[in-house]
Amino acid sequence: MRLALLGAGRIGQIHAANIHHHPRAQLHAVVDVNAEAAKSLAERYGAKAATDARAVLEDPAVNGVFICTSTDTHVGLILEAARRKLPIFCEKPIDLDLAKVDACLDEVRRAGVPLVLGFNRRFDPHFRALRDAVRRGEAGDVEIVKITSRDPAPPPLAYIRGSGGLFRDMMIHDLDMARFLLGEEPVELFATGACLVDPAIGEAGDIDTAMVILKTRRGALCHIDNSRRAAYGYDQRIEVFGSKGMLQAANPLPTTVTRYTREAVRSDTPYPFFLDRYPEAYRAELEHFLDVATGRAEPLVTGSDGRAALVLADAALQSLKLGRPVPISR
Amino acid sequence: MRLALLGAGRIGQIHAANIHHHPRAQLHAVVDVNAEAAKSLAERYGAKAATDARAVLEDPAVNGVFICTSTDTHVGLILEAARRKLPIFCEKPIDLDLAKVDACLDEVRRAGVPLVLGFNRRFDPHFRALRDAVRRGEAGDVEIVKITSRDPAPPPLAYIRGSGGLFRDMMIHDLDMARFLLGEEPVELFATGACLVDPAIGEAGDIDTAMVILKTRRGALCHIDNSRRAAYGYDQRIEVFGSKGMLQAANPLPTTVTRYTREAVRSDTPYPFFLDRYPEAYRAELEHFLDVATGRAEPLVTGSDGRAALVLADAALQSLKLGRPVPISR
Amino acid sequence: MRLALLGAGRIGQIHAANIHHHPRAQLHAVVDVNAEAAKSLAERYGAKAATDARAVLEDPAVNGVFICTSTDTHVGLILEAARRKLPIFCEKPIDLDLAKVDACLDEVRRAGVPLVLGFNRRFDPHFRALRDAVRRGEAGDVEIVKITSRDPAPPPLAYIRGSGGLFRDMMIHDLDMARFLLGEEPVELFATGACLVDPAIGEAGDIDTAMVILKTRRGALCHIDNSRRAAYGYDQRIEVFGSKGMLQAANPLPTTVTRYTREAVRSDTPYPFFLDRYPEAYRAELEHFLDVATGRAEPLVTGSDGRAALVLADAALQSLKLGRPVPISR
Amino acid sequence: MRLALLGAGRIGQIHAANIHHHPRAQLHAVVDVNAEAAKSLAERYGAKAATDARAVLEDPAVNGVFICTSTDTHVGLILEAARRKLPIFCEKPIDLDLAKVDACLDEVRRAGVPLVLGFNRRFDPHFRALRDAVRRGEAGDVEIVKITSRDPAPPPLAYIRGSGGLFRDMMIHDLDMARFLLGEEPVELFATGACLVDPAIGEAGDIDTAMVILKTRRGALCHIDNSRRAAYGYDQRIEVFGSKGMLQAANPLPTTVTRYTREAVRSDTPYPFFLDRYPEAYRAELEHFLDVATGRAEPLVTGSDGRAALVLADAALQSLKLGRPVPISR
Repeated sequence: MRLALLGAGRIGQIHAANIHHHPRAQLHAVVDVNAEAAKSLAERYGAKAATDARAVLEDPAVNGVFICTSTDTHVGLILEAARRKLPIFCEKPIDLDLAKVDACLDEVRRAGVPLVLGFNRRFDPHFRALRDAVRRGEAGDVEIVKITSRDPAPPPLAYIRGSGGLFRDMMIHDLDMARFLLGEEPVELFATGACLVDPAIGEAGDIDTAMVILKTRRGALCHIDNSRRAAYGYDQRIEVFGSKGMLQAANPLPTTVTRYTREAVRSDTPYPFFLDRYPEAYRAELEHFLDVATGRAEPLVTGSDGRAALVLADAALQSLKLGRPVPISR
Repeated sequence: MRLALLGAGRIGQIHAANIHHHPRAQLHAVVDVNAEAAKSLAERYGAKAATDARAVLEDPAVNGVFICTSTDTHVGLILEAARRKLPIFCEKPIDLDLAKVDACLDEVRRAGVPLVLGFNRRFDPHFRALRDAVRRGEAGDVEIVKITSRDPAPPPLAYIRGSGGLFRDMMIHDLDMARFLLGEEPVELFATGACLVDPAIGEAGDIDTAMVILKTRRGALCHIDNSRRAAYGYDQRIEVFGSKGMLQAANPLPTTVTRYTREAVRSDTPYPFFLDRYPEAYRAELEHFLDVATGRAEPLVTGSDGRAALVLADAALQSLKLGRPVPISR
Repeated sequence: MRLALLGAGRIGQIHAANIHHHPRAQLHAVVDVNAEAAKSLAERYGAKAATDARAVLEDPAVNGVFICTSTDTHVGLILEAARRKLPIFCEKPIDLDLAKVDACLDEVRRAGVPLVLGFNRRFDPHFRALRDAVRRGEAGDVEIVKITSRDPAPPPLAYIRGSGGLFRDMMIHDLDMARFLLGEEPVELFATGACLVDPAIGEAGDIDTAMVILKTRRGALCHIDNSRRAAYGYDQRIEVFGSKGMLQAANPLPTTVTRYTREAVRSDTPYPFFLDRYPEAYRAELEHFLDVATGRAEPLVTGSDGRAALVLADAALQSLKLGRPVPISR
Repeated sequence: MRLALLGAGRIGQIHAANIHHHPRAQLHAVVDVNAEAAKSLAERYGAKAATDARAVLEDPAVNGVFICTSTDTHVGLILEAARRKLPIFCEKPIDLDLAKVDACLDEVRRAGVPLVLGFNRRFDPHFRALRDAVRRGEAGDVEIVKITSRDPAPPPLAYIRGSGGLFRDMMIHDLDMARFLLGEEPVELFATGACLVDPAIGEAGDIDTAMVILKTRRGALCHIDNSRRAAYGYDQRIEVFGSKGMLQAANPLPTTVTRYTREAVRSDTPYPFFLDRYPEAYRAELEHFLDVATGRAEPLVTGSDGRAALVLADAALQSLKLGRPVPISR
């Protein structure tokens, strides 16, 4: 498949490398509003560089698109690609506005093109193995899910201001993971939070520390905790508890080396950065997209999944404001 | 010290053995309404047996009392002992009724006798080391506390009916631990729960699966999850996250043996029973009581601590009923 | 059982406390050439104090003896006790001279009294569980055994000079463990070593770092490594590898607390001292002795086991001197 | 760099993929005596296919060579490449005959071409981190090294017959690792072994279970154990013990998922196959070769390292035959 990559930023560079190295894929073009960025990345892999996405999508050589641009451009580019019947991979979220998301997904559905959303954690081998074990019933009926998700350090304030807030920017991954693991939809959500890491985040109207509890119709409970700062690195763990036992996915560590000295027994800290933590997930994501685009697989993360996670994130924001649990409307 | 043990049940037997083996303590008398039980336990350690607590407390040889009887008798026995100026150890809770607890603690204060309450987990070496590390600032400012507490199997229904419910019977230990670790008082509590383990528990008006979120004035968050059943054994873990890092206390395991076979790498399951899990805690509790009774230490768990945990448990029950967070009144 | 304890030193004090606390045992008398030491320990537990072992063993009230004196007195005291038909517990080794050991064991056999030797590690719950798993065939046919044994710090030079050397003083525990686990007798042994920890040990004619390989008739191999100094604490681990898999017993740690900071993930170091490492083993040893003395069990560690370990230690010394493997003569 | 790959077998395929994906390398040609194998691999990556290595090495476009053919062809191909002044990567061993190795390395030296030998484990991130920590002195002076190396299952008998035996085929990796970690050359070696896994291996004149002890001049000791079969997967662990503590590198596991059930706490078994275990090592090996070939780095594994490991393997074979330690001649 000859793919057009839209967006030459941090995440776009990851996808570019993976596409280049994949035996079934070819990086045809790189598009970025920053011509230098597009050129630099395109040259590295022998692809074309462009600043105009529309022109590239019209190129008949292109038969798939990776959307890795800023969130506010996602809907426009998805629609553009859908019109050209191109299979679409889009980084999350589709949009921060639910109405726009709905309108966009309607168009995609009408166009009949496959859309895979970039909830990368679903493709992580550790979380994937956990979920497969849950599906096989190794924990029995799921009763408690606990998701920990903490970033090494807060993003720049400018990013936070445009991010839609912690729930829609950061916890949305965990909310998606909750749905992935619970096996049924949450019907109620309670959110609370505080600004403990950096007062400037609070001044920007956001929180940096949060807890959410989701409840399903059957009564299964899911807890999520988030912090924008973890001194020891990127911390993402999941625990699923049920009638037959418990499954846990821990943080993978860079090396298996343990050091025993007079003072302590020490092992590595978790990875300091999400790109170090999730390389296999990004490769598996591409593999999956190629399978979907060629009709060999159904999307593991659909536009509906993206929408549902956004509904939960919006509910969290509402719950935080109201100071009480809110029902999940669909 | 010559101690009178009131209550020859499961927990009374633990204390009897520890008192007998302690170089600074002597088991003077065992009291139980069941004369056979009192006699059997007393004989094992060369102590007197009795069915009337009042008579034993009047014995001038007695200079300390362990109250391990059923909850409804605690207040009466505490008052009896306080009148005789005896240092008191009492298993939690003082009472399920807050007004009675207050009246009782007033009397104890007036009598000027020390009272140590049996929140055994505070004395567990693992949790104690965790808390000491928190106090030393190893996690920095505490921002997130997570407490997991799951029993291997539900108690008999008869017990559940008289227990005051999951929050006051089981989670009360975790609520005390939350206060022990947070370093400041919670000001708000949200509770949710379900009956997932055994419908009979629901028919008895109780839940068997629960989650609670506590919030302090500063914004620190604490999450507790409980289940009345864990297939893999007694599961009690704590995680404290703060500005400088994270501290975790895991389940101790019976042996360090690991088995590698074609199928899996297997280690022991956690202890199946709280008496196997907490032997050091009960010994440390006795040691501490003797120090308190002889004026060498201030109580690590006071009557006020018992009251405060009950206030939180009552708040949890109220939150569950109202379906929304409740403020903590003191 | 009313027991006489011979030797009020470090290990004698451990046994005294355990005997005192055991429901089926009573500490009748404590004997030590140092009258003060005997008196001090005896008083702690309400026992008689004496300096003359013979007189105490003649006391008809005594019906069992614990020998915890210095090695050179073991044979004499064993024979004394055997003559009086007393069940005997003796700390290892019986003697450093094989001929004396043989003569002594002959007498014990003739007297028909049970003798339990103090290889405490056989009673450690972790190693015991490992060995039980080996016996149940969980590793399949045993092919490789690896035993690590390192002390936190070397003993005083005076002790080393009278110890019989590293093989007979320290590795003898591991040689016994090798026999315990291999399930068949070694037929060949190769030893090598060096003085790396403290040159003074070398000047005293001993080594402080050693490796031994044992081979059984069937070809199973066992490796032991020893060091007189381990910066991180008392290090004793065992690995058994066989046709069906591998079993490992790791070092138990004081607490389960893990600390995550910017620098590292840290857990506790192993215990710094063997008395902290093996409390359960000493208790189980006493329990077992009481069972043996009352005819309920056969000795788990016989005089023959003590002899066989000494034969291996002597072979190691010989191999080290000759610089080649030596056959094990029995 | 445009590389010629000689040998399209299992290991050649690994290198082909890595070369193809590396931004600084290009797979120019694939050579194999089996024309089909060469063609199939070459086509996958757009390279030329050939059966005649000499012709390919004469191609002026080629500026580096990967030798992944059978051992008996290594010397001839190394000499051919050296004559053409091509930087050489060669899979271990250079040859099983020491005299041939010496003659070959003389030629390479005279030709002045860099030669990197494929001891892949030196490039493994876990072992590399271990060695870096040793070099930084984190264990202090190295006193004990323990290397465990067990294969999931024996290779075919035909392979074993031509392999030069366990020491030269399998343990040679561990002997190289010993040198890599000890920081000084062994002066004595003792080897023992047995045929426990499959009698047919014994009939072929080989062993399948082995232990070796190396000793350096200073007295540092290194133990290696090998088995041709491990039920639980590819098992390669290293422990370095010294004056300041201990460093361990454990087996990395496919996922971090742990399963808690009534029966056990289970984690993944190690990788079942060396290609799954060492993908990063092979990539790092290529990276290093490119650095060496372009003059940016000195070889981390030289021809001399290959020779030294072979000397140790030959010494092990001799020790096994003689039944005693042998000195290491250089």
